[in-house]
Parts: sequence; C-alpha cells; structure tokens
Amino acid sequence: MGSYYLDDKTVHYQWDSRIAPRVVIDSGETVTLDCRDAADGHYGPHRSAEDMAAPRVSRGHPLTGPVYVRGAEPGDSLAIEILAFEHKGWGWTRCSDRGGLLPGEFGTLLKLWELQDGYTEFKPGIRIPLEPFCGIMGVAPAGDEPLATMPPRSAGGNMDIRHLVAGSTLFLPVYVPGGLFSAGDCHGAQGDGEVCITGIEAPMAVTLRISLRKGYTIPGPQFVTPSPLTKTDTRGYFATTGIEPDLLEATRQAIRHMVEHLVQERGLTREEAYLLCSVAVDLKVSEVVDAPNWIVSAYLPLSIFVG
Amino acid sequence: MGSYYLDDKTVHYQWDSRIAPRVVIDSGETVTLDCRDAADGHYGPHRSAEDMAAPRVSRGHPLTGPVYVRGAEPGDSLAIEILAFEHKGWGWTRCSDRGGLLPGEFGTLLKLWELQDGYTEFKPGIRIPLEPFCGIMGVAPAGDEPLATMPPRSAGGNMDIRHLVAGSTLFLPVYVPGGLFSAGDCHGAQGDGEVCITGIEAPMAVTLRISLRKGYTIPGPQFVTPSPLTKTDTRGYFATTGIEPDLLEATRQAIRHMVEHLVQERGLTREEAYLLCSVAVDLKVSEVVDAPNWIVSAYLPLSIFVG
Repeated sequence: MGSYYLDDKTVHYQWDSRIAPRVVIDSGETVTLDCRDAADGHYGPHRSAEDMAAPRVSRGHPLTGPVYVRGAEPGDSLAIEILAFEHKGWGWTRCSDRGGLLPGEFGTLLKLWELQDGYTEFKPGIRIPLEPFCGIMGVAPAGDEPLATMPPRSAGGNMDIRHLVAGSTLFLPVYVPGGLFSAGDCHGAQGDGEVCITGIEAPMAVTLRISLRKGYTIPGPQFVTPSPLTKTDTRGYFATTGIEPDLLEATRQAIRHMVEHLVQERGLTREEAYLLCSVAVDLKVSEVVDAPNWIVSAYLPLSIFVG
Repeated sequence: MGSYYLDDKTVHYQWDSRIAPRVVIDSGETVTLDCRDAADGHYGPHRSAEDMAAPRVSRGHPLTGPVYVRGAEPGDSLAIEILAFEHKGWGWTRCSDRGGLLPGEFGTLLKLWELQDGYTEFKPGIRIPLEPFCGIMGVAPAGDEPLATMPPRSAGGNMDIRHLVAGSTLFLPVYVPGGLFSAGDCHGAQGDGEVCITGIEAPMAVTLRISLRKGYTIPGPQFVTPSPLTKTDTRGYFATTGIEPDLLEATRQAIRHMVEHLVQERGLTREEAYLLCSVAVDLKVSEVVDAPNWIVSAYLPLSIFVG
C-alpha cells in the first residue's frame, strides 16, 4: 500500500468537483495532508500585532486536496481513518463582536497559543490538553457549482466535530467519481459547540488512511471514536443550563451563564471566558422532549485548572 | 445533623408554593425521598398487559416533598448533594406516536426492565449500565399559581439531566421561603436528550444532603458532576450527525440516522431503536457557529453490545 504526501503550498478555498485531484490513490492507501490554519496565516507568532489587527478578507478555508480514490462512485462511501497529527508549535483563537453563538455580546480578543507536548496554557493556572482534529474533512458535493467552505453539508466539510481525533474513523458519502477528499482547519482543541467560532486554530499535518466502502450508502457523515471521549474527563465538570423553548436560545443561555460563572468565580474577562468556552466547554442536549422547554447544558472540565 | 425519610405515600402533582412542607430541615441535613415512577404505577411487573395498555390520564409527575430548608429566602440558592439511589428492581420505557423528539414517526412500544446489580438488559446482547438519577429535582417557583410538572424552569424541575448521578451536586435558586424542594421521576439510565420522552423510568429512593448558600444568587440550575461522565465510555462510540440550519431539526436528523443505523446494522425494529436511543444515546452540539448549518451528533456507546 502506498503512502502519499501533499504539501500546503497548493490549497483550494471552495468545494468544487471541477478542481483537479492532487493525488490519485487506491482504497486503503495513506495520505499525509499538510494543512494551513483556517485564517491562511493571518494570525500567528510570525506576524506583527499590527498586521494581525488589520482587516482580513477571507477567501474561504484553505484546504489541502483533493484526493481521488480509485473506483469511488456516487452511492459508495469512504472510511477515513485518522491516524496522526503533527502541529507546528503554535495556534490562535479569536472572538469578535461578529460571528459565533453570541454576536454583538463580546469585544475582540486574539489569543496566540504555544503548543507544548500534549497541552497548551491559556493563562497561568489554566491548561488545555491537546486533542487535535481536523475541523474540515469532506468530499466534493454533487454538481459543478463552487460552494463556500463555511457551512458543513452531507458531504462533510466544516464539521468541527471535536471527537474526530487520532484513532477515530470518519465515514463520508461519495457524490462524485473519486470522492475528491480534502481536509484543513485543524484544531489543537475545541469544546463541543465551538461557541466563539474558533477553536485552537493551528496549521498541522494530518495522516489518514482512506478506504472505499463499495456500494455502502450513507445519508451523511458518521464516525467511530475511541474511549475515553476526552482527556479532560478526569476531575469532574461544572455545568450551567439553558432552559428555553428554542434549542438555539437554550444553547445561548447555557453559554451566557457559563461566561458569568467564569468571570465571577475564576476572575476571567468576559472575552477570556468566551474564548475558554469555545476551546474547552462541551455543549450537551440534556433533554429535548419536556415541552415546551428544552435544556442544553454547558460542561466545563475542572481538570483544566491546575496548580 | 439530622436525617429524614419521606415515604412515597404522599405525593404532589404540580409545582405550587402553597403546598405544605412535609419536613423542615436545617442546612446540611440529609433527606431520603422515596419516589414513585413518572407514570405513578401505571406500568410495571405488578400490572397486567391489559391494564398497562389502557389509556392513562396523567395528573403530572408524582413528586415527593416539599422539603423546607430553614432560613432559605429568595435570592439564596441550595446545594443538593446527591448521595445515593436505591431502585426497586424494575423500570419501564415507552414510546408512542405522540410526544418525544419525533412524534408521528413511531408506533407504541413498552419495555419493562429488570434492574440487576449495576446493569439492565435491553435484549440479549445489549446491556445498559445503571447510572441512576432523578429526572425531577426542583424548588417551588415564585408566585402562587400551580404549575405543571412537565416543563423544566429556572427553578429546576423536570430537567432530565443524566449526569445528576450519585456524587454530583445540583445548585438551585430559591424563589420562596424555605425553597420547598421536591424530587421524583427517577431514571435507571438515560441518554442525553431522552429522545423518546422516557428513560428507564423507575421508582427509587434517593438520599440527598441539602445545604443553604446564603446570599449566593444563581440564574438557574447549575451542577458539578464527577468523572468519568458515564460508565459507557469504555469501548468507543458510533456517531451519526444532523446537519441543518435549525438546531432542533439537526437533532431530529441525528436521531433518525441513528435509528436507521440500529435497524440496518443491529437488527432492531424501529421502535426498539428509538427506545435504545432514548436510554443510551447521547446528543452533543458539535458546532453551532458554521452558518447556516449547525451540527448535532448522536453518540451510541459500543460498550452496551456484549457477548
């Protein structure tokens, strides 16, 4: 079985079945995709504060690929085994008054992270374990119109599912010949929800084994992920609730309450609290049947508070 | 410090600040509340199939309490340490074409469970670990109107938060003098979401230590729960996704896809699959920021498949 390497010099910024594949592989072969960060290098330790504060025009997420899998046809699916990640020592997280779960409620804050061996420090006393994954893994959607990278679709894409870590396997439908798989938007860590719109955004190389499941049709992304679900589940959780007749508003309330808690009890600024929620707090749908009020709960792992 | 016992002979079916307390305790004292099951004895091994199939008129969940905590006043909060549960050997789960996350999509199925020491069997080869909690813990809301037990509120109530197991602590606001705490609706196990509208419903006695947090105001229920979050996180998970611009519809899609998977891959009937989702599958908000599509994922623990 062959293994291939795609550098991060050539990227694409849209999903488009007409983009020529960078590599053609057989089912079961391995590819290493070197991926730029989501903001295409705008933030990072190599940039001045002035440059990073300048407006950024996004063309979309830079994606590495596509990978063409021989024999893949619409109606098949791919099994993508996530084997390994290699980060480059740094990452960033940013909130602003636009985007995210709570637009208009926070100012701008940019955090640059130094990625250590297995963890990264938010500030003294708060350490986030690294649990890297690709925010974006997807195949080319059907049709020959270019599509934006922001929304996830049944073809996968910008799913930001934090449990797609090394050791997990993602299953994706195939919509065009070869599948045309690409990846990018790697995260060093992220909570379920990614509430401020960024996790620990970081350039990384990801190594994957891609296999064809001939004739096995699935309606959208599915995956298998190993136990334990997270490295943070060691010292319990503090949780807040959102109780509302609308599930999105319940989600917002749970995070607002968590931000209040982090400000009052942990001495963070509101923006620091929002960022910390995005990289470390997990949103769960506690109940969605006790009409008319649903509950979304936000879980803060206590293991991130050290010393 | 005193400890008190309230039997399940006297219950109340609404939240109402005018219901006289059954016991008055000091902060830090312990109460054991014997709780009827959510359907007030309509289902169970003591009942004939004919009786259980007869229409049931619900007066509300039967609740044990209220407990008056001396000195509790509006603006304070209570810390409820959940110490222990004792089940009575049986439980039930039921779906129908009404209620739940997917009304109109399933027929009726009633499952009676024999609760063993630490687990219960769904059918040969599928075992659910018991992780008991109270579906309902709450205090009397402000005002003097009786309120239905179905919706949860900032006063708590029918929250169905599966991680309120023994070893966790629930924090609730106080809205009326004494707080007037009651509990009921115990579950032997449940997935995050409780999608078919019932968990493993079971009569249980729950032992709690209730402490007053004088002057500590909170906006709604909060809690601390120990690690690991669940006994099921031992052999990984299979997960489906719902990718939709509406968070509730994303939730529905994730469960529909999981039901399809359980029918195709595990040989369950659709109703069995729906029930299994309700008692064992966890719903997570994977991302709620990649406009216009949010992702809710449904996690099936593989550890429940034995032998």
